[in-house]
Amino acid sequence: MASIDPLADLVAALQRLPGIGARSATRLAYHLLKTPRDEVDALCAALLSVKERVTYCSICSNITSVDPCTYCTAGDRDSRLICVVEQPENVAAIEKTRGFRGRYHVLLGAIAPLRGIGPDDLKLKGLLDRIGAGGVEEVILATNPTVEGEATAHFLSELAARHRVRATRIAHGVPIGGELEYVDGGTLAHALAGRQAVY
Amino acid sequence: MASIDPLADLVAALQRLPGIGARSATRLAYHLLKTPRDEVDALCAALLSVKERVTYCSICSNITSVDPCTYCTAGDRDSRLICVVEQPENVAAIEKTRGFRGRYHVLLGAIAPLRGIGPDDLKLKGLLDRIGAGGVEEVILATNPTVEGEATAHFLSELAARHRVRATRIAHGVPIGGELEYVDGGTLAHALAGRQAVY
Repeated sequence: MASIDPLADLVAALQRLPGIGARSATRLAYHLLKTPRDEVDALCAALLSVKERVTYCSICSNITSVDPCTYCTAGDRDSRLICVVEQPENVAAIEKTRGFRGRYHVLLGAIAPLRGIGPDDLKLKGLLDRIGAGGVEEVILATNPTVEGEATAHFLSELAARHRVRATRIAHGVPIGGELEYVDGGTLAHALAGRQAVY
Repeated sequence: MASIDPLADLVAALQRLPGIGARSATRLAYHLLKTPRDEVDALCAALLSVKERVTYCSICSNITSVDPCTYCTAGDRDSRLICVVEQPENVAAIEKTRGFRGRYHVLLGAIAPLRGIGPDDLKLKGLLDRIGAGGVEEVILATNPTVEGEATAHFLSELAARHRVRATRIAHGVPIGGELEYVDGGTLAHALAGRQAVY
Protein backbone atom coordinates (compact mmCIF):
# COMPACT_ATOMS: atom_id res chain seq x y z
CA MET A 1 0.00 0.00 0.00
CA ALA A 2 2.90 2.40 0.60
CA SER A 3 3.23 4.15 -2.73
CA ILE A 4 4.62 7.63 -3.23
CA ASP A 5 1.10 9.05 -3.38
CA PRO A 6 -0.83 8.42 -0.14
CA LEU A 7 -3.87 10.26 -1.50
CA ALA A 8 -4.12 7.97 -4.54
CA ASP A 9 -3.82 4.96 -2.19
CA LEU A 10 -6.70 6.26 -0.09
CA VAL A 11 -8.86 6.90 -3.16
CA ALA A 12 -8.17 3.33 -4.32
CA ALA A 13 -9.03 1.90 -0.88
CA LEU A 14 -12.26 3.92 -0.63
CA GLN A 15 -13.31 2.91 -4.13
CA ARG A 16 -13.48 -0.70 -3.03
CA LEU A 17 -16.48 0.13 -0.84
CA PRO A 18 -19.95 -0.51 -2.28
CA GLY A 19 -21.68 2.44 -3.91
CA ILE A 20 -18.52 4.56 -3.90
CA GLY A 21 -17.15 5.36 -7.35
CA ALA A 22 -14.05 7.24 -8.44
CA ARG A 23 -15.68 10.64 -7.96
CA SER A 24 -17.08 9.99 -4.46
CA ALA A 25 -13.83 8.34 -3.39
CA THR A 26 -11.83 11.39 -4.49
CA ARG A 27 -14.23 13.76 -2.73
CA LEU A 28 -14.05 11.68 0.45
CA ALA A 29 -10.25 11.52 0.30
CA TYR A 30 -9.91 15.30 -0.01
CA HIS A 31 -12.40 15.70 2.82
CA LEU A 32 -10.44 13.32 5.03
CA LEU A 33 -7.30 15.27 4.21
CA LYS A 34 -8.85 18.34 5.83
CA THR A 35 -10.44 16.38 8.68
CA PRO A 36 -8.72 16.77 12.07
CA ARG A 37 -6.39 13.93 12.92
CA ASP A 38 -8.35 12.78 15.99
CA GLU A 39 -11.52 12.37 13.90
CA VAL A 40 -9.68 10.16 11.40
CA ASP A 41 -8.23 8.21 14.33
CA ALA A 42 -11.76 7.74 15.68
CA LEU A 43 -12.94 6.43 12.30
CA CYS A 44 -10.06 3.94 12.18
CA ALA A 45 -10.73 2.87 15.76
CA ALA A 46 -14.39 2.27 14.89
CA LEU A 47 -13.39 0.26 11.81
CA LEU A 48 -10.96 -1.94 13.71
CA SER A 49 -13.27 -2.29 16.69
CA VAL A 50 -15.96 -3.72 14.43
CA LYS A 51 -13.50 -6.30 13.10
CA GLU A 52 -12.17 -7.14 16.56
CA ARG A 53 -15.23 -7.09 18.74
CA VAL A 54 -18.10 -8.16 16.50
CA THR A 55 -18.57 -11.91 16.23
CA TYR A 56 -21.49 -14.19 15.43
CA CYS A 57 -23.86 -15.43 18.13
CA SER A 58 -23.35 -19.15 18.72
CA ILE A 59 -27.12 -19.65 19.00
CA CYS A 60 -28.74 -17.51 16.30
CA SER A 61 -25.73 -16.51 14.10
CA ASN A 62 -26.62 -12.83 14.38
CA ILE A 63 -23.73 -10.41 14.76
CA THR A 64 -22.98 -9.47 18.34
CA SER A 65 -20.27 -8.23 20.65
CA VAL A 66 -21.38 -10.61 23.44
CA ASP A 67 -22.04 -14.31 22.92
CA PRO A 68 -24.87 -15.36 23.11
CA CYS A 69 -26.39 -12.16 21.76
CA THR A 70 -28.87 -10.01 23.64
CA TYR A 71 -31.79 -11.24 21.51
CA CYS A 72 -31.07 -14.84 22.55
CA THR A 73 -30.63 -14.02 26.25
CA ALA A 74 -33.40 -11.42 26.67
CA GLY A 75 -35.87 -12.75 29.25
CA ASP A 76 -38.86 -10.88 27.83
CA ARG A 77 -38.73 -12.46 24.39
CA ASP A 78 -40.96 -15.33 23.33
CA SER A 79 -38.80 -18.41 22.67
CA ARG A 80 -41.70 -20.19 20.97
CA LEU A 81 -41.39 -17.84 17.98
CA ILE A 82 -38.29 -17.86 15.75
CA CYS A 83 -38.01 -15.36 12.92
CA VAL A 84 -35.57 -16.63 10.27
CA VAL A 85 -33.78 -14.03 8.16
CA GLU A 86 -30.91 -14.05 5.68
CA GLN A 87 -28.63 -11.34 7.07
CA PRO A 88 -27.94 -9.46 10.32
CA GLU A 89 -29.19 -6.22 8.73
CA ASN A 90 -32.61 -7.88 8.35
CA VAL A 91 -32.76 -8.33 12.13
CA ALA A 92 -32.03 -4.63 12.57
CA ALA A 93 -34.81 -3.77 10.09
CA ILE A 94 -37.37 -5.95 11.89
CA GLU A 95 -36.31 -4.63 15.31
CA LYS A 96 -36.91 -1.10 14.10
CA THR A 97 -40.60 -1.92 13.60
CA ARG A 98 -40.89 -2.82 17.34
CA GLY A 99 -43.55 -5.29 16.22
CA PHE A 100 -41.74 -8.56 16.97
CA ARG A 101 -40.85 -9.89 20.40
CA GLY A 102 -39.76 -13.42 19.55
CA ARG A 103 -36.25 -14.76 18.88
CA TYR A 104 -34.23 -14.64 15.66
CA HIS A 105 -32.19 -16.96 13.52
CA VAL A 106 -29.80 -15.56 10.92
CA LEU A 107 -28.87 -17.88 8.03
CA LEU A 108 -26.01 -15.67 6.80
CA GLY A 109 -27.06 -16.36 3.23
CA ALA A 110 -29.74 -17.96 1.08
CA ILE A 111 -29.91 -21.05 -1.07
CA ALA A 112 -28.60 -20.09 -4.53
CA PRO A 113 -27.92 -23.16 -6.69
CA LEU A 114 -26.66 -21.01 -9.58
CA ARG A 115 -23.92 -19.62 -7.37
CA GLY A 116 -23.25 -23.02 -5.84
CA ILE A 117 -24.74 -22.14 -2.44
CA GLY A 118 -26.73 -25.02 -0.96
CA PRO A 119 -28.34 -25.62 2.45
CA ASP A 120 -24.99 -26.80 3.84
CA ASP A 121 -23.54 -23.33 3.30
CA LEU A 122 -26.15 -21.70 5.53
CA LYS A 123 -26.19 -21.50 9.33
CA LEU A 124 -28.87 -24.16 9.65
CA LYS A 125 -27.47 -26.38 12.40
CA GLY A 126 -28.27 -23.90 15.17
CA LEU A 127 -31.84 -23.59 13.92
CA LEU A 128 -32.28 -27.37 13.78
CA ASP A 129 -30.83 -27.69 17.30
CA ARG A 130 -33.30 -25.15 18.61
CA ILE A 131 -36.25 -26.83 16.89
CA GLY A 132 -35.03 -30.25 18.00
CA ALA A 133 -34.74 -29.09 21.64
CA GLY A 134 -38.48 -28.47 21.60
CA GLY A 135 -40.47 -25.46 22.71
CA VAL A 136 -40.50 -23.83 19.28
CA GLU A 137 -44.05 -23.45 18.04
CA GLU A 138 -43.67 -21.28 14.97
CA VAL A 139 -40.90 -20.49 12.53
CA ILE A 140 -41.52 -17.21 10.69
CA LEU A 141 -39.78 -17.29 7.32
CA ALA A 142 -38.65 -13.73 6.66
CA THR A 143 -36.13 -14.39 3.91
CA ASN A 144 -36.09 -11.93 1.02
CA PRO A 145 -38.84 -12.07 -1.64
CA THR A 146 -36.24 -13.03 -4.26
CA VAL A 147 -35.75 -16.33 -6.08
CA GLU A 148 -33.06 -17.30 -3.55
CA GLY A 149 -35.11 -16.18 -0.58
CA GLU A 150 -38.19 -18.02 -1.79
CA ALA A 151 -36.19 -21.20 -2.40
CA THR A 152 -34.75 -20.93 1.10
CA ALA A 153 -38.20 -20.35 2.61
CA HIS A 154 -39.55 -23.38 0.75
CA PHE A 155 -36.66 -25.55 1.97
CA LEU A 156 -37.19 -24.39 5.57
CA SER A 157 -40.94 -24.95 5.41
CA GLU A 158 -40.34 -28.61 4.53
CA LEU A 159 -37.80 -28.85 7.35
CA ALA A 160 -40.34 -27.42 9.79
CA ALA A 161 -43.03 -29.80 8.55
CA ARG A 162 -40.70 -32.71 9.20
CA HIS A 163 -40.34 -31.53 12.81
CA ARG A 164 -44.07 -30.79 13.05
CA VAL A 165 -43.43 -27.12 13.74
CA ARG A 166 -45.67 -24.48 12.22
CA ALA A 167 -43.94 -22.42 9.49
CA THR A 168 -45.28 -19.09 8.24
CA ARG A 169 -44.09 -16.75 5.52
CA ILE A 170 -44.23 -12.96 5.93
CA ALA A 171 -46.86 -11.32 3.74
CA HIS A 172 -45.86 -9.84 0.41
CA GLY A 173 -48.02 -7.21 -1.19
CA VAL A 174 -48.51 -3.53 -1.85
CA PRO A 175 -46.34 -1.44 0.52
CA ILE A 176 -48.25 0.76 2.95
CA GLY A 177 -48.39 4.30 1.59
CA GLY A 178 -47.62 3.05 -1.90
CA GLU A 179 -49.91 3.72 -4.80
CA LEU A 180 -51.20 0.88 -6.94
CA GLU A 181 -50.02 2.36 -10.24
CA TYR A 182 -46.42 2.53 -9.03
CA VAL A 183 -46.29 -1.03 -7.73
CA ASP A 184 -44.66 -3.61 -10.05
CA GLY A 185 -46.79 -6.36 -11.54
CA GLY A 186 -45.23 -9.18 -9.55
CA THR A 187 -46.00 -7.49 -6.25
CA LEU A 188 -49.54 -6.65 -7.36
CA ALA A 189 -50.14 -10.27 -8.43
CA HIS A 190 -48.87 -11.37 -5.00
CA ALA A 191 -51.15 -8.89 -3.30
CA LEU A 192 -54.17 -10.19 -5.22
CA ALA A 193 -53.36 -13.84 -4.61
CA GLY A 194 -52.81 -13.17 -0.90
CA ARG A 195 -56.00 -11.16 -0.40
CA GLN A 196 -57.66 -11.45 2.97
CA ALA A 197 -61.33 -11.34 3.95
CA VAL A 198 -62.38 -8.13 5.66
CA TYR A 199 -66.12 -8.82 5.80
CA MET B 1 -15.88 5.70 21.05
CA ALA B 2 -15.94 2.41 22.96
CA SER B 3 -19.64 1.77 23.46
CA ILE B 4 -21.26 -1.63 23.79
CA ASP B 5 -22.23 -1.56 20.12
CA PRO B 6 -19.18 -1.29 17.81
CA LEU B 7 -21.42 -1.38 14.73
CA ALA B 8 -23.43 1.65 15.87
CA ASP B 9 -20.14 3.46 16.56
CA LEU B 10 -18.93 2.72 13.05
CA VAL B 11 -22.22 3.89 11.51
CA ALA B 12 -21.92 7.14 13.51
CA ALA B 13 -18.30 7.65 12.40
CA LEU B 14 -19.13 6.98 8.73
CA GLN B 15 -22.12 9.32 8.85
CA ARG B 16 -19.78 12.22 9.58
CA LEU B 17 -18.35 11.90 6.06
CA PRO B 18 -19.80 14.18 3.36
CA GLY B 19 -22.54 12.71 1.20
CA ILE B 20 -23.01 9.69 3.48
CA GLY B 21 -26.36 9.56 5.25
CA ALA B 22 -27.74 7.11 7.78
CA ARG B 23 -28.72 4.58 5.13
CA SER B 24 -25.37 4.57 3.26
CA ALA B 25 -23.45 4.51 6.54
CA THR B 26 -25.40 1.45 7.70
CA ARG B 27 -24.88 -0.30 4.37
CA LEU B 28 -21.14 0.48 4.45
CA ALA B 29 -20.85 -0.72 8.06
CA TYR B 30 -22.47 -4.07 7.28
CA HIS B 31 -20.25 -4.38 4.23
CA LEU B 32 -17.13 -3.69 6.28
CA LEU B 33 -18.29 -6.29 8.77
CA LYS B 34 -18.08 -8.90 6.02
CA THR B 35 -14.87 -7.48 4.53
CA PRO B 36 -11.71 -9.50 5.24
CA ARG B 37 -9.65 -8.11 8.10
CA ASP B 38 -6.60 -7.32 5.94
CA GLU B 39 -8.68 -5.17 3.60
CA VAL B 40 -10.01 -3.13 6.52
CA ASP B 41 -6.44 -2.85 7.83
CA ALA B 42 -5.36 -1.55 4.41
CA LEU B 43 -8.13 1.06 4.46
CA CYS B 44 -7.04 2.23 7.92
CA ALA B 45 -3.41 2.32 6.85
CA ALA B 46 -4.35 4.45 3.84
CA LEU B 47 -6.38 6.80 6.06
CA LEU B 48 -3.57 7.26 8.56
CA SER B 49 -0.92 7.49 5.87
CA VAL B 50 -2.76 10.44 4.33
CA LYS B 51 -2.81 12.20 7.69
CA GLU B 52 0.83 11.40 8.41
CA ARG B 53 2.54 11.81 5.07
CA VAL B 54 0.56 14.47 3.21
CA THR B 55 1.64 18.02 4.00
CA TYR B 56 1.45 21.34 2.17
CA CYS B 57 4.14 22.47 -0.25
CA SER B 58 6.13 25.36 1.22
CA ILE B 59 6.18 27.09 -2.17
CA CYS B 60 2.73 26.63 -3.72
CA SER B 61 0.66 25.34 -0.73
CA ASN B 62 -0.54 22.36 -2.75
CA ILE B 63 -0.80 19.05 -0.91
CA THR B 64 2.26 16.86 -1.31
CA SER B 65 4.21 14.06 0.29
CA VAL B 66 7.53 15.70 -0.64
CA ASP B 67 8.37 19.36 0.00
CA PRO B 68 8.64 21.26 -2.32
CA CYS B 69 6.05 19.43 -4.40
CA THR B 70 6.74 17.83 -7.78
CA TYR B 71 4.91 20.64 -9.62
CA CYS B 72 7.27 23.21 -8.10
CA THR B 73 10.44 21.19 -8.78
CA ALA B 74 9.59 19.78 -12.24
CA GLY B 75 12.19 21.04 -14.71
CA ASP B 76 9.86 20.93 -17.69
CA ARG B 77 7.29 23.35 -16.32
CA ASP B 78 7.14 27.02 -17.28
CA SER B 79 7.89 29.15 -14.20
CA ARG B 80 6.68 32.27 -15.97
CA LEU B 81 3.08 31.02 -15.70
CA ILE B 82 1.36 30.59 -12.33
CA CYS B 83 -2.14 29.18 -12.19
CA VAL B 84 -3.88 30.21 -8.96
CA VAL B 85 -6.61 27.93 -7.60
CA GLU B 86 -8.58 27.68 -4.37
CA GLN B 87 -8.06 24.04 -3.42
CA PRO B 88 -5.68 21.12 -4.08
CA GLU B 89 -8.47 19.22 -5.86
CA ASN B 90 -8.58 22.04 -8.42
CA VAL B 91 -4.92 21.33 -9.30
CA ALA B 92 -5.81 17.67 -9.84
CA ALA B 93 -8.72 18.69 -12.11
CA ILE B 94 -6.52 20.97 -14.23
CA GLU B 95 -3.73 18.39 -14.42
CA LYS B 96 -6.21 15.87 -15.76
CA THR B 97 -6.75 18.06 -18.82
CA ARG B 98 -3.01 17.83 -19.67
CA GLY B 99 -3.42 21.32 -21.10
CA PHE B 100 -1.33 23.31 -18.63
CA ARG B 101 2.44 23.10 -18.19
CA GLY B 102 3.07 26.07 -15.88
CA ARG B 103 3.30 26.18 -12.09
CA TYR B 104 0.50 26.33 -9.53
CA HIS B 105 -0.40 28.25 -6.45
CA VAL B 106 -3.07 26.98 -4.08
CA LEU B 107 -4.78 29.57 -1.86
CA LEU B 108 -6.44 26.97 0.39
CA GLY B 109 -9.57 29.07 0.42
CA ALA B 110 -11.26 32.11 -1.08
CA ILE B 111 -12.14 35.55 0.20
CA ALA B 112 -15.53 35.31 1.89
CA PRO B 113 -16.31 38.43 3.96
CA LEU B 114 -19.64 36.99 5.13
CA ARG B 115 -17.82 34.08 6.73
CA GLY B 116 -15.08 36.35 8.03
CA ILE B 117 -12.44 35.05 5.61
CA GLY B 118 -10.21 37.84 4.32
CA PRO B 119 -7.01 37.91 2.23
CA ASP B 120 -4.93 37.28 5.38
CA ASP B 121 -6.56 33.87 5.79
CA LEU B 122 -5.39 32.71 2.36
CA LYS B 123 -1.97 31.36 1.42
CA LEU B 124 -0.96 34.58 -0.33
CA LYS B 125 2.52 35.17 1.04
CA GLY B 126 4.09 32.43 -1.07
CA LEU B 127 2.46 33.85 -4.20
CA LEU B 128 3.67 37.38 -3.41
CA ASP B 129 7.21 36.05 -2.77
CA ARG B 130 7.19 34.31 -6.13
CA ILE B 131 5.91 37.37 -7.96
CA GLY B 132 8.34 39.59 -6.05
CA ALA B 133 11.28 37.36 -6.95
CA GLY B 134 10.65 38.19 -10.61
CA GLY B 135 10.36 35.92 -13.61
CA VAL B 136 6.57 35.54 -13.37
CA GLU B 137 4.90 36.88 -16.50
CA GLU B 138 1.32 35.80 -16.09
CA VAL B 139 -0.95 34.85 -13.21
CA ILE B 140 -3.91 32.77 -14.37
CA LEU B 141 -6.81 33.24 -11.96
CA ALA B 142 -8.61 29.90 -11.86
CA THR B 143 -10.64 30.42 -8.70
CA ASN B 144 -14.22 29.13 -8.75
CA PRO B 145 -16.92 31.06 -10.66
CA THR B 146 -18.70 31.79 -7.36
CA VAL B 147 -19.12 35.07 -5.49
CA GLU B 148 -16.14 34.17 -3.28
CA GLY B 149 -14.01 32.99 -6.20
CA GLU B 150 -14.79 36.12 -8.23
CA ALA B 151 -13.98 38.37 -5.27
CA THR B 152 -10.69 36.52 -4.81
CA ALA B 153 -9.86 36.81 -8.51
CA HIS B 154 -10.63 40.52 -8.42
CA PHE B 155 -8.39 40.99 -5.37
CA LEU B 156 -5.55 39.06 -7.02
CA SER B 157 -5.88 40.98 -10.29
CA GLU B 158 -5.28 44.21 -8.39
CA LEU B 159 -2.32 42.65 -6.62
CA ALA B 160 -0.87 41.55 -9.96
CA ALA B 161 -1.43 45.03 -11.43
CA ARG B 162 0.52 46.54 -8.54
CA HIS B 163 3.43 44.23 -9.39
CA ARG B 164 3.01 44.88 -13.12
CA VAL B 165 2.37 41.21 -13.83
CA ARG B 166 -0.26 40.19 -16.34
CA ALA B 167 -3.36 38.59 -14.76
CA THR B 168 -5.89 36.53 -16.71
CA ARG B 169 -9.14 34.88 -15.69
CA ILE B 170 -10.17 31.48 -17.07
CA ALA B 171 -13.10 31.66 -19.49
CA HIS B 172 -16.60 31.01 -18.25
CA GLY B 173 -19.30 29.97 -20.67
CA VAL B 174 -21.31 27.11 -22.05
CA PRO B 175 -19.67 23.76 -21.21
CA ILE B 176 -18.43 21.76 -24.21
CA GLY B 177 -20.99 19.10 -25.08
CA GLY B 178 -23.67 21.00 -23.19
CA GLU B 179 -26.86 22.14 -24.87
CA LEU B 180 -27.94 25.76 -24.70
CA GLU B 181 -31.38 25.05 -23.30
CA TYR B 182 -29.92 23.22 -20.30
CA VAL B 183 -27.41 25.92 -19.40
CA ASP B 184 -28.43 28.30 -16.60
CA GLY B 185 -29.04 31.96 -17.37
CA GLY B 186 -25.99 33.24 -15.52
CA THR B 187 -23.65 31.03 -17.52
CA LEU B 188 -25.36 31.92 -20.78
CA ALA B 189 -25.10 35.65 -20.00
CA HIS B 190 -21.38 35.10 -19.26
CA ALA B 191 -20.98 33.20 -22.53
CA LEU B 192 -22.58 36.04 -24.50
CA ALA B 193 -20.61 38.77 -22.75
CA GLY B 194 -17.37 36.81 -23.27
CA ARG B 195 -18.00 36.06 -26.97
CA GLN B 196 -14.91 35.88 -29.16
CA ALA B 197 -14.42 36.82 -32.82
CA VAL B 198 -14.12 33.79 -35.11
CA TYR B 199 -14.09 35.69 -38.37
